Amino acid sequence: MNPSAPNPLPLALTPGDPAGIGPEIVVKALARDSVLRQRVVVVGNAGVLADAAARWGGGLRVRRVDLRETHRATSDDAIQLHPVASDLLQDAELPTHGVVSATGGRLAYDAVVAAAQLSLAGHTCGLATAPISKLALRAAGVSEPGHTEILARLAGLEGSQRYAMMFASERLQVVLATIHLPLADALAALSPDLVFEKLRLTHHAGRWLGQLSPRIAVAGINPHAGEGGLLGHDETRVLLPAITRARAEGWQVSDPLPPDTVFMRARQGEFDVVLAMYHDQGLIPVKLLGLDAAVNVTIGLPFLRSSVDHGTAFDIAGRGVASEANMLHVLRWHLGRVAARDAATGGATIPGL
Amino acid sequence: MNPSAPNPLPLALTPGDPAGIGPEIVVKALARDSVLRQRVVVVGNAGVLADAAARWGGGLRVRRVDLRETHRATSDDAIQLHPVASDLLQDAELPTHGVVSATGGRLAYDAVVAAAQLSLAGHTCGLATAPISKLALRAAGVSEPGHTEILARLAGLEGSQRYAMMFASERLQVVLATIHLPLADALAALSPDLVFEKLRLTHHAGRWLGQLSPRIAVAGINPHAGEGGLLGHDETRVLLPAITRARAEGWQVSDPLPPDTVFMRARQGEFDVVLAMYHDQGLIPVKLLGLDAAVNVTIGLPFLRSSVDHGTAFDIAGRGVASEANMLHVLRWHLGRVAARDAATGGATIPGL
Repeated sequence: MNPSAPNPLPLALTPGDPAGIGPEIVVKALARDSVLRQRVVVVGNAGVLADAAARWGGGLRVRRVDLRETHRATSDDAIQLHPVASDLLQDAELPTHGVVSATGGRLAYDAVVAAAQLSLAGHTCGLATAPISKLALRAAGVSEPGHTEILARLAGLEGSQRYAMMFASERLQVVLATIHLPLADALAALSPDLVFEKLRLTHHAGRWLGQLSPRIAVAGINPHAGEGGLLGHDETRVLLPAITRARAEGWQVSDPLPPDTVFMRARQGEFDVVLAMYHDQGLIPVKLLGLDAAVNVTIGLPFLRSSVDHGTAFDIAGRGVASEANMLHVLRWHLGRVAARDAATGGATIPGL
Repeated sequence: MNPSAPNPLPLALTPGDPAGIGPEIVVKALARDSVLRQRVVVVGNAGVLADAAARWGGGLRVRRVDLRETHRATSDDAIQLHPVASDLLQDAELPTHGVVSATGGRLAYDAVVAAAQLSLAGHTCGLATAPISKLALRAAGVSEPGHTEILARLAGLEGSQRYAMMFASERLQVVLATIHLPLADALAALSPDLVFEKLRLTHHAGRWLGQLSPRIAVAGINPHAGEGGLLGHDETRVLLPAITRARAEGWQVSDPLPPDTVFMRARQGEFDVVLAMYHDQGLIPVKLLGLDAAVNVTIGLPFLRSSVDHGTAFDIAGRGVASEANMLHVLRWHLGRVAARDAATGGATIPGL
């Protein structure tokens, strides 16, 4: 270990909607892994975390820290919290598990905003998030449907194509060119400029993929990638112009490939990442390969943002039966990717990870 | 064994394009499995089969049979052949491995026509096919792109919606509502009538799926199956009317389900078969789960037709390195499904399978 290396930056973790399983899986994951306890700082409401820690924290205390101060390596005997006050919670009454509420939405939202601002200011090595509720956000007066759009706005990317969802798992990594649009609208939205922008994001996501110049597979739009025009012309009209521009930048980008085999080929190691053209083209293979090992990543932000690949699970919240497996995987993946980035780019090495 | 039960009908097997790997995997599969040798009759050119048997048949002879005569149980010491004469092969010269030719296309086509006619006349328990070449068919003057369309025409279903492709594997079975269309055209082609017709076929495919009333999952068209109209209205406009009609028939049909999780749910046993709306929606999960265990089935024909899930592999043809794994799986699946159908419908039981 280099004694002059700075202490590694902590990872901010927001607990999500307090009425869902988020606080439970946050506390369970940190209770299970002492290395994670040294690096992860929960950013959220003190009452919510104290309640969860008392129920599922295995006797661990909660220690308050301030991420704006230089972070020092701490012992691993407590769960670290950067507290966020929320105006709505004057009476310290916590939302009921399993019930959508404006209070829950506001607590979740305020934590995400605080953690994003700390990350934008360079106080963290990124942000990991537990699930929030679209309905609770709406009840709290927040119009965005989810984390990705909130974070894009806070980072000044609202309305642009300069961010994207990526799904990373052990043997398959997928970036989505379009996300939440009716399928016909997604097809209409695909343009050479949009696809080029997503190729740019995918190429630069190499920092997180462990490949500074990732081998990018471009999934076709039509069956058999159009089969030379017999099954559609979108590949020549939309994809090839973007691919030509990307190759001129020196990026490793495939021709448009038949969608039904490109994920199998990537999984077998032929490519590092697949750029999928629409939501289900990319998410059918990701979900089929297993949820516990998938990480939902926002690329294009000034910091790494990772998330679990499941929802609030209101139906089982508060009962102690939620699995922290995906959360553990997300936190370990995040810190591992930061370490790999720092090693590849000459940044500070990170001990213990 | 019931002494009054009729002998089980044989399974016709066509060797595909003689310049591809078809004859090789046919002979290798039959050489490996003596039970299959008693039930499977190759329908094709005698010269092609003799050549393949001499190279890869492990010393087995070829015995000529006539499927129009009452088939009697035979010993398993030979590969059974119902010979098909082809006008183009007067000089008995076989096509060169790896080379597309009109002769190869014609030999493959004539075998398929003969086997289909024998099956339509009730002389078989169905037809299994090795791969043919679209280019060779075209060189031979055959306009259809593949087996499915040829067989639909021979069965009088040309131009109708009354047939469909199904992919069957150990833990996932998928029917395609549309097949080889540009994706935007496939979306435009989806109508309540088309989807109802495919639900009808899927329900009746229960004979082959091992469930007389299969639990059918209907994949949505849009992300999250439209999410109550936020992400599209095709689910209410196209799918729900067809589902309502299907339920009135007494069939077990789901609501439109989010496409990104429906295949995972079916694989976990919640459904027997998924009706996918477009080519890649259905084939991405099938191919990701492994090719060796997938069977390509045509449903809606008067007989069961199964096929390997790979192509002619001209690049490795003639070298003896092709794997017969998928062919073995297809033949065993086909005979197993016939036995299950007969058991379920009170037909003759089939000994030894």
